[in-house]
Amino acid sequence: MTVPLGQPRRVAVYSRLAAGIRAQVFPLGSLLPKESDLGTRLGVSRTVVREALMLLEEDGLIHTRRGVGRFVAPELPRAGLERLRPFEEVLASQGQTVGVENLQATIQHATDFVAGGLELDPDANTWFWETRLTRDGEPVALVQEHIPAGRDLRDISPLLAERLRDPQDPGRTLFAVMTDVLGPVFGPGECAMTAGVAGATRGRLLSLAPSAPLLILTQTAQHGGRAAYLAKYIVRAGERLSINQPPQS
Amino acid sequence: MTVPLGQPRRVAVYSRLAAGIRAQVFPLGSLLPKESDLGTRLGVSRTVVREALMLLEEDGLIHTRRGVGRFVAPELPRAGLERLRPFEEVLASQGQTVGVENLQATIQHATDFVAGGLELDPDANTWFWETRLTRDGEPVALVQEHIPAGRDLRDISPLLAERLRDPQDPGRTLFAVMTDVLGPVFGPGECAMTAGVAGATRGRLLSLAPSAPLLILTQTAQHGGRAAYLAKYIVRAGERLSINQPPQS
Repeated sequence: MTVPLGQPRRVAVYSRLAAGIRAQVFPLGSLLPKESDLGTRLGVSRTVVREALMLLEEDGLIHTRRGVGRFVAPELPRAGLERLRPFEEVLASQGQTVGVENLQATIQHATDFVAGGLELDPDANTWFWETRLTRDGEPVALVQEHIPAGRDLRDISPLLAERLRDPQDPGRTLFAVMTDVLGPVFGPGECAMTAGVAGATRGRLLSLAPSAPLLILTQTAQHGGRAAYLAKYIVRAGERLSINQPPQS
Repeated sequence: MTVPLGQPRRVAVYSRLAAGIRAQVFPLGSLLPKESDLGTRLGVSRTVVREALMLLEEDGLIHTRRGVGRFVAPELPRAGLERLRPFEEVLASQGQTVGVENLQATIQHATDFVAGGLELDPDANTWFWETRLTRDGEPVALVQEHIPAGRDLRDISPLLAERLRDPQDPGRTLFAVMTDVLGPVFGPGECAMTAGVAGATRGRLLSLAPSAPLLILTQTAQHGGRAAYLAKYIVRAGERLSINQPPQS
């Protein structure tokens, strides 16, 4: 099994198994193969398999029946904004495929808002990615993402700094690239929401009237205890995003 | 200590201590009194205190230093939509006081949407509460809440059925009354969000133009494994609601 650079093996195994469950390679409600069989199949140790299964159980994708084995859940939880993940995945979890068009990926002098949000020197530069997400060819959201550039980025990850210098990955948001390069190592995060209107520029990019209502999300995420990601997701009215809330206690 | 009916003692103690922390009776960063002292002060056993402290630690309000004791966190997490709670509390967590005006509290024949959402017989009746939330006298949100009525409500809680027959509690949403009567026993829940426009009626109730953009949240929550609460929160543009997201793993 090839593991993306910087991604712990248990997380890679988790992702493979989760993808298998979502693709019904392991059908809903079915008994999963034994730890040792999964380990052989995926070319990893039983310990790694066991840790990945623990994560799957925590996320409600599988459950254990004592003395019997592990089963795929009868119904899969639909992940929402309660978790940090690439916005194309948040929209795709509505059940359809989401296209990602890269509009720009540049290094910019940070605005006050961005420098403040990322806790950077006011003279610092930042990476700015803008992508448009589509469904069935229709634009549904704009994603504007900021992370530190230069030394501040190398402090976060030399690997990521290197990767971004290459031609940009087509068809991904910056957060998807970050998670792919570094593994899921971001957080905690905060996602704030409000309503607004499109205005001329965003209206043009989303094929909407300037007066059209929009859902506007501001996402921040930390890495190693400091602000490392700041984004704005601008979403067409009618898209429904969800938050799963645990029972009160 | 008087415990609201149906509320576990650990949750009552949790609430008391959390309120004390938020009111700075226990200042930020300070050492908390010992378990035994807290127990004496609150008139409950050490076991109950210990369980409440565990909940406070899980929620980031306190932290333990091994061998030293428990400390109030240096900064309090601002709770957001990742938890099920009364909408006036969600808006109040922005730091200001929120007023709640009851517009109506009636038993209605369920619409298809409500009967479906609450998994009720299409002929069933439901409680419908509508409240308007204000800040500094300005309307900021409308809250429209539905729960089962009659037998279906008595199946959930005879106590709650009884309480709703009395004159309505002024200045609370239905969810706040439910949590007050039964304790925090609801969930899991799902909160879905989208953007929309006010339209004439809601615009009038919120003092907005019919074309004004709004944030629209649909909240569902279960009780004992079945749908028990369905609400729509209609929020003025500019209000920022947040979701706290744990680190990726």
